[in-house]
Amino acid sequence: MIRKIHHVAFAHPAGSPLPRALRQALDLREVHQEPGDGFVERMLRVGDGFVQLLEPTGPGVIQKFLDKRGPALHHVAFEVDDVAAAVSSLRLAGLPLVEPAPRPGGMGSAVAFVHPAALDGLLVELVQPGGSES
Amino acid sequence: MIRKIHHVAFAHPAGSPLPRALRQALDLREVHQEPGDGFVERMLRVGDGFVQLLEPTGPGVIQKFLDKRGPALHHVAFEVDDVAAAVSSLRLAGLPLVEPAPRPGGMGSAVAFVHPAALDGLLVELVQPGGSES
Repeated sequence: MIRKIHHVAFAHPAGSPLPRALRQALDLREVHQEPGDGFVERMLRVGDGFVQLLEPTGPGVIQKFLDKRGPALHHVAFEVDDVAAAVSSLRLAGLPLVEPAPRPGGMGSAVAFVHPAALDGLLVELVQPGGSES
Repeated sequence: MIRKIHHVAFAHPAGSPLPRALRQALDLREVHQEPGDGFVERMLRVGDGFVQLLEPTGPGVIQKFLDKRGPALHHVAFEVDDVAAAVSSLRLAGLPLVEPAPRPGGMGSAVAFVHPAALDGLLVELVQPGGSES
C-alpha cells in the first residue's frame, strides 16, 4: 500500500533560522511554496522526497501546535498510489481518520490523515501525488 | 551532499500500540532490531527508507525525551555518501554537531547528529549506510 516516505514536516514560527540553515548548510532546495489555512507550507527537495516546513500566518492548527509543543517535527507523510483505496483499507483495519474522506493537499495531491490517537500521537498523512511534483 | 531521507524516528514507551498498528494497518515490515544505550531501535521498511521506532529499555536519551515530550517524532535522518566529508562541510558552514566526530550507528552505518540548537529544535542525523541494509 505504502510506496515510500513522501515528506517529513516540521513546524516553526516566523523568523525561525531553520529554513536558511537547511538551504545554506545542508543545501536543500526549496521547490514549492503554498498557502494553507493559517499557514504557509514550503517543500524542500530531498532525493525523491521532501522536507516540508510549516509556518503559521495566522490562527490555525500550526499556530496551535507551536503554542503547545514549540518548534517540532509535525507529521510524516507516506506516498500511496490511491488514497481512496488506502483510506478504505485503513477503515477495514479499524484505524480512525481525521476527516471522513480524502481532500486536496499541496502540489495538486489528494491526502488523508490518520487520527494520531490510534498511533500513540504519531500523525501520519497519506499522499497520492498530483502531477506537479517534478 | 544529501541523497535522500534515510529514516524518520519516533520515540514511544514500552507497550505502545504504535508498532502493531504500523505493522497490521499500514503493512510496514520490521526488518531490523538493535539495542542502543538505554533503548532498542526497530527499523520498519518504507520504500527505500525506514521508519525507526525508539523504545526505552532503561535510563537514557530516549526515556528523557519521553519524560519531556511524551511519544513524538524524534529526528529525521538524511543519507549521505561520506559522513566525514558531510561533517567537515557542516563545520565550514558554521553548524555545530552533537559529537565531535562520526560514530557507529545502527545496521553498520556511520552517523553524526547536527546540534538541534542550530536548527530551531530539529534534530538531524546524517547517515552513511553500512553494508547490511538490504
